[in-house]
Parts: sequence; structure tokens; C-alpha cells
Amino acid sequence: MFRFFSVDDHIIEPADVWTSRVPAKYRDVAPHVVEEGDRQFWEFEDQRITTMGTNAVVGKPPDEWSVEPISFDDMRRACYDPVLRAADLRSQGIFASVNFPTLPRFGGALFAGFKDKVLAHHCVRAWNDFLIDEWCAADPDMFVPMVIVQLWDPELAAEEIQRCIEKGAKAVCFVENTTPLGLPSLHDESHWDPIFGLCEEAELPVCMHIGSSGSSSVPDPKTPMIVTFASVAFAGAALASINMMMSPVPRRFPNIKLVWSEGGIGWVPAAMERADRQYARHLWSHASNDLMPSEVCRRNMWFCMIEEPVGIKYRHDFEIDHILWESDYPHADTPFPNTQENASEVFAGVPQDEIDLITHRNAEQLFHHQLVGPQPAGTSAG
Amino acid sequence: MFRFFSVDDHIIEPADVWTSRVPAKYRDVAPHVVEEGDRQFWEFEDQRITTMGTNAVVGKPPDEWSVEPISFDDMRRACYDPVLRAADLRSQGIFASVNFPTLPRFGGALFAGFKDKVLAHHCVRAWNDFLIDEWCAADPDMFVPMVIVQLWDPELAAEEIQRCIEKGAKAVCFVENTTPLGLPSLHDESHWDPIFGLCEEAELPVCMHIGSSGSSSVPDPKTPMIVTFASVAFAGAALASINMMMSPVPRRFPNIKLVWSEGGIGWVPAAMERADRQYARHLWSHASNDLMPSEVCRRNMWFCMIEEPVGIKYRHDFEIDHILWESDYPHADTPFPNTQENASEVFAGVPQDEIDLITHRNAEQLFHHQLVGPQPAGTSAG
Repeated sequence: MFRFFSVDDHIIEPADVWTSRVPAKYRDVAPHVVEEGDRQFWEFEDQRITTMGTNAVVGKPPDEWSVEPISFDDMRRACYDPVLRAADLRSQGIFASVNFPTLPRFGGALFAGFKDKVLAHHCVRAWNDFLIDEWCAADPDMFVPMVIVQLWDPELAAEEIQRCIEKGAKAVCFVENTTPLGLPSLHDESHWDPIFGLCEEAELPVCMHIGSSGSSSVPDPKTPMIVTFASVAFAGAALASINMMMSPVPRRFPNIKLVWSEGGIGWVPAAMERADRQYARHLWSHASNDLMPSEVCRRNMWFCMIEEPVGIKYRHDFEIDHILWESDYPHADTPFPNTQENASEVFAGVPQDEIDLITHRNAEQLFHHQLVGPQPAGTSAG
Repeated sequence: MFRFFSVDDHIIEPADVWTSRVPAKYRDVAPHVVEEGDRQFWEFEDQRITTMGTNAVVGKPPDEWSVEPISFDDMRRACYDPVLRAADLRSQGIFASVNFPTLPRFGGALFAGFKDKVLAHHCVRAWNDFLIDEWCAADPDMFVPMVIVQLWDPELAAEEIQRCIEKGAKAVCFVENTTPLGLPSLHDESHWDPIFGLCEEAELPVCMHIGSSGSSSVPDPKTPMIVTFASVAFAGAALASINMMMSPVPRRFPNIKLVWSEGGIGWVPAAMERADRQYARHLWSHASNDLMPSEVCRRNMWFCMIEEPVGIKYRHDFEIDHILWESDYPHADTPFPNTQENASEVFAGVPQDEIDLITHRNAEQLFHHQLVGPQPAGTSAG
């Protein structure tokens, strides 16, 4: 049996995440659920979100899939119930799970767009408190706390990360790119230092999910959007990770740990080679002649895969201990309920020690969280 | 000795390409060269271009490179002289060369932005006449005519392609993506039919160069632009080629031949696998359940590389007869003047028949143009 540590799942937030936690005066403008007929919506400030859980399709037959579950009743309860979630995951052999937000968007950037930044600050804290005190507390062996931050204020973000570390936070959720969101550049020498500096010091991996830039990479608005978006998302991760390789971040913080979620791994060797070649040829165009992009990539970056035989085939052209596994529950990419069977095909022929690294040991080390779950038959605990 | 067919080089247009060919009344508004001090500029309509030849750096030491040669005298003459160009190429073992335009942009899209579309039409024809009658005519064994088209009018474009076929055209230059240029979508069922239909019928490959979309994929404006652009360009080719895989074009024209220039090859196997997986999972979101993206890719697409050991290593995970070689003269990526030496490293350990396919035989077949040049020692002509 495979024993999995999933570094990428998704919480669908219950209705009271914010209303039960923000100060009373903000309850009407913080995210709350309203109903119209059989539909439910999230409302906040002067906005309304028309889906309760983007692509939360787990457990439905594919011909009923859509991007827009219209109410909580339209979803499998394990989307928003941590006890049921943990049961679903364990049934697959998944014994640890890192979760991204949904309403706050995959990088937590929603609140950076709020007009009222005090409200936004309370909303960030409310999500983190919900995550740690409610979601992860429901099953501390299973759930690994990854917190969101005040992207518009790195000093405030560092304070929030520190507050959450004291409550058990093990990772920080960030955005693939900053400038498409109207935030300062990663190339602004010291702007982001408070976040990356603290994450380096506290050994918290910084996780960036595909589609968290606030801009789509899809080059044609008339393409079949879902399938094209999901297909090209690796290119978005490539753009973001290469931009990061060229940036001051890994040079200022040589021990920073950067995780690119749902971007796949099979393209990474070709990308490193190309970036190195260009970096060496175009020294005239950039100031630094220190680390090659591939050195940054191999030292500071982790890439993730769900079911990717090609990526597995090429695993030794990247770093075998920088490859992570993800379940993507409850999105369309999740192998649930066939995780074990599918993995048998994906990992066919791979030595057990390498399977263990990819499925859980790399993540255990990176997130400082040990799997608690049945040991493989015929082995002792270890 | 390696014998090369380069499917991607660049013409720097001489000053009189348009002024000597457009009707007299257009000479002042068609592209023409003006001088100010020691600088030269291209002017047309009400615009001025501040570089005479983007990144035309061949023959200069890297510490003198820039994106902006400021005059013809600032460039190696072989940039704009076909006789000298052919000599440079032959010195490298390159015996055939397909060339992209420079001032009209890599996809010929400059003229689609002209206010006066009659002028634009004359400018397209002038470039094609220059290409065929002057550039390629200077060395018909070496130069393979690839023409640009009236992107704003597919019917007119088809007429132009037909006109050029009669003059010897062997390929058509197109753009990676259409919508970022304000042109109709590739997913508009029949809009582009006149171009792709004629190219299929006449067996003309359609070549799309990185950076020809009119929009950059670079996600951060403060990144070291040249090195990041060149590094991430494969992601741009991935976005465009996957969009094309999902489009009606290869379904309406099953024999269309699509060439992605300077995008590299090493990422293609991972991209095909991901696209297939998403296409199969998300049948609910798109109408068609016919060809998988990888089937389109393996049947209709060719990918190109300059020096890419990783791509060579993965060559059998794509199609060995759909990989092409490029020299990228006179840009910074060109291996000139070390083409043979560098190729010895890139192709180390590859069987000779596969080297022959990649370096020239695939291109000979695709472009219907046979290499004329010295045969390898110890072999008969063949």
C-alpha cells in the first residue's frame, strides 16, 4: 500500500468562517453566505461570488461536473467538513494533507483587493484561526496548517505568520506572481523580505498554487476554458518559477523553500537547461553572475505531481528529494476514490525508497510533519 | 561533419525593401529608414522603431550585446546581405535556411496594425517579393522561401499565398496566438480556413515563432527582461501549441503541418501527457471527443531546438521525425561560429540516422527542399 502525504488539497470554507470570528462591526461586510432560491452565494464588501466552491466536484460522476457548485448541499460534505475529509483521505492511504483556501483564492489574494484593509486584515486572521483552531484541530495528525498572509503589507504579514507559528503553522501560502495582482515585484530588492526572511528563519515552506496570480495564462478566450486552463497550468508554474529563479528572493534567502503546487514536474529538467543557457549567454543583460537558475531550482524549489508517468520517468533529471505528491481533493484532478490503484500504474517500476520519498518522506521533512498511519505490511515503524 | 537545415533564422531587412516596391504614393508612409546623427530608425505611418534589428548580435562579443543595434553599420553585414549570410551559414555546415521577418515582427503582424490596410497589403506583398526575388534568389539552394500574410483578411492572405506559391514559396509564417493581437480566435470555427486550407492542400508548413503573439509571457516587468524572456519562451510556445491542439484547426485540416519555432522540445512529452489527462477528465466541458491532444501533437506539430541535450535525451517520448533544428542567426541564441563543435556535444551518443533526421532530413521532407552541400566523408550522395 502507498502511504501518501498530500501537499495540495482544498478547503471549501463553511459559511461561518468569517462571521463567527471578525469583530461585530464587520460581520455584514466580511464574507457571509446569502441564499436565493436553491442557490447560495458568498457576499463581502460590495461583491458577490457565484460559485460556492470552484470545481469542487469530488464524488460526482464527470457528466455532472461543473465549475460552479451552487450550494453546500450540491457538494460532498467532506469538501467543508474536516472529520469527513480526513476519513475520505485515509480511505485513500493519505495520512497528511496541506490545504489551500478557496474563497480567499488559491494564494489568499482576495483580501488584498478589499477596499477596507482593516476588514481585510481581520479576514486573513479569521481564515487562519479557522484553519488552525477548527479544521486542523479536528485531526492534527492529518492536517498540516498552512496560513495565508496580508499580501498588501509584508510587515503585517510577518506578524501574522509569527502569531500563527506560535499556534502551530507549518507553511505559508503565497501567490505565483505578484505584479499581475497589483502588488510590488519580486524583483523589488527588499520589499518582500519580512515574509521570506521569516519563512527562511522558521523553515516554513512557501507554497504557490497554479492559478494564483490573478491572471490566466490561457491565450485564447474562446478555447474550451477548463480543459485548456488545466492543461497549460504547468506553463504558468514555469513562468512563475523561472521569474522567481531570476529574482533576488533565493539570493537574499539561500535557505528559502519554495513549493510550486499542481504545476507538474516533467517539464522542469528542460526548463532548467534552457534557463541556464540563457542566463550564461545573457550575462550582459543582468547584474548577477552568482547562482545559475538550475542551482536555485535544485536548492530552493520543490515541484508537485498527482499522476504523471512522464515526470516520474524524468525524476532523476531533477532532484528526487524535491518532488512532492498531491491529491488535489476535492477538485477534478483528484484520483479519489482510486488513489491506490492509479498510483500502482504511475509508480510502476520505481524502487520503493524512491516511491517513499515522493509519496511522503520529502514532504515529511519539508513540512516538519510526520505521517501517522498504518505502516506498510512486513516493515517496522520508521 | 553535421549537415544542417535551419528552420529558424532571421532576416534584417535592408533599407529599400518597401520603398523600392510599394506604389509611389505610399513611399513616404511605407517603412523607410531615417537617420539622426549616428542612429538610424525605421519609420512608417506615424510610428518610429528605435532598433534596426532586435537582438541582431551575431559576431559581437557578448559584452557588446544589446537588444538595439542602432544602425546597419552596427551589425555584421551578413544580417542583411544574403550572399554574406549564405557564406556564414555554409561555414557552419548549414546548407538550408528558413527566415523570419524582423521589422514586420516574427509573425508578420506589424502590418495588421496599420491604419491604412491598403498600404498594409502592399507592405506584405513587398516583403514577400523582396524575400523571394532578392533574398532567396541570391542563393536558391540555401534559402527556403517562407512568406508572411495579411493576417487581418484570411481571404486576401490565401490569394497572397497562392501568388507566392507560384513564385516558389515553401512555407507560411503565422502568429503563435491571434487574439492578443486583436485578431479573431483560432476557435472561431471557419474564420481562418482560407489560410489553413490552402496550406494543407499545398503542403506548406505553417511556422510560428516564439514572441509572435504581440504579448509577452514574462510575468514580472522588473525581471531581467532578455534572459527571462528567452528562458520562459518555451512556456509561451506551450501555451500557444496547446491552445492549437484544442482548436478546430487540426480537426478541420487533418494534414496541416504546424511548426513551433524556438520553443524547444524537452517539455513536449510532459505537456502532451498533461493535456491528454485533462482532455479525458474534462470531456464534460468541451464538445469534442475525437482526437486526443497528443494525437494532434504527434500528427500535426513539429518542434524545434538549437542546443538542447535534455530535449535530445527525451526525443523518443515525442516523435523522432517531428523534431527540427534551428540556427537562429543572427540572434543571441545562435551557436555561430561554433555550430559544429557545439553540436558534437549536443548530439553525443545519438545514432547517426537520428542525427540526420533532426539536423536535416525531417526538414527536407517538411519543407520540400533538399540540402545541396558536401556529403559526409565516406558516404555516397543520398
